[in-house]
Amino acid sequence: MEIILTEDVLSNNNEAARFNRDLFRKKNTLTINIMSSPGSGKTTLLEKTVADLAGKYRIGVIEGDLATQKDADRIRAAGAKAVQINTNGTCHLDARMVAKVLPEFQDDEYDLIFIENVGNLICPSSYDLGQGRNITMLSVPEGNDKILKYPVMYQRTELVLLNKIDLIDLLDFSIEEAIEDLKNINPSSRLIPVSARKGTNLEEWYAWIDKAYEEWTKAQKELETK
Amino acid sequence: MEIILTEDVLSNNNEAARFNRDLFRKKNTLTINIMSSPGSGKTTLLEKTVADLAGKYRIGVIEGDLATQKDADRIRAAGAKAVQINTNGTCHLDARMVAKVLPEFQDDEYDLIFIENVGNLICPSSYDLGQGRNITMLSVPEGNDKILKYPVMYQRTELVLLNKIDLIDLLDFSIEEAIEDLKNINPSSRLIPVSARKGTNLEEWYAWIDKAYEEWTKAQKELETK
Repeated sequence: MEIILTEDVLSNNNEAARFNRDLFRKKNTLTINIMSSPGSGKTTLLEKTVADLAGKYRIGVIEGDLATQKDADRIRAAGAKAVQINTNGTCHLDARMVAKVLPEFQDDEYDLIFIENVGNLICPSSYDLGQGRNITMLSVPEGNDKILKYPVMYQRTELVLLNKIDLIDLLDFSIEEAIEDLKNINPSSRLIPVSARKGTNLEEWYAWIDKAYEEWTKAQKELETK
Repeated sequence: MEIILTEDVLSNNNEAARFNRDLFRKKNTLTINIMSSPGSGKTTLLEKTVADLAGKYRIGVIEGDLATQKDADRIRAAGAKAVQINTNGTCHLDARMVAKVLPEFQDDEYDLIFIENVGNLICPSSYDLGQGRNITMLSVPEGNDKILKYPVMYQRTELVLLNKIDLIDLLDFSIEEAIEDLKNINPSSRLIPVSARKGTNLEEWYAWIDKAYEEWTKAQKELETK
């Protein structure tokens, strides 16, 4: 299926987000937008995820960074198709940037596309990319206070992956306090503690993906039969 | 000295930055703007710094965050005057926000005012606050790739404080590589490795402050005699 981008699509972010969302639906691709501070471990998580789930899902990755191809190179080395977006200074991805790289995915089928947003705990939460699901990573070294100090990010996410729990005994971080703070500002979200680097508790994250994918395909079928 | 903010001053960022810079000169206050990702350890460094240097300098702190008074409370508990700015969603401090809180410092003399910017490795680097010096913190858990992935931030800083070196044996981080990357994009800057939490190598950071303060006062005297 050839993907054609018209000027209309690229005229504003909402148009582009709608275009992306429609296209992901037509292609039966669940897209998961991952946001976090710089260095929380998004790319390490995706390296593990694309390798571990390669037999189950056809996975693509869109990498957002101000500069360099480093993250896309890492994902390719882990075995998945990856396209790098360089925002050249812009502090977040937007739907137009994403739309512009979608033709690079047109020749294959994808069950899942992960979009790794620019490392930033503020700006990315305000831009609809047309994604299916929104998740946020927090890492133990960043500290407990981030959830309440960056409320908009944590209010707009449905899952918090608490990464780097292998360091928890060395640092003052309380998982209970993080769950409590999250519950107060975003009652419907949940938290999964993991260590992407050590591979700890990734099965809970993979189970979340399975459930998200199942819900997505079910919702698609309901749309089709309407 | 009463600080009066006119509408002119607040009309745009450059006007406000000029106002702040002039005021800091008149008051003989060196201001140091500290930027980093969320959770790099800026507040922990400032807690240690205001306590350790209390006998030497009269220190004030301006804390920038989207939400909460958490950081200003921590600085006050460490023994310094602190004023919290809440940006309510804006991803950086600007000079107008800083100008608006300066009257809160008018009744005392300050040798040093630290401005802890919003945790964000992108947006804060583009806004002049009228500060004397610009520094950036990087923490070991964030990884070596940050310097090249966020080039504007590291090009516009004169000092990189590499924090959390107490964790370096557990993580894949090379100080040599960080120094090399920094040299390539910003030859005149330098890097000081520290652990704010453990108090490691803070004397090198304090020596940097002493030198910056000495240069500042010397430059002030030269301006006066012109």
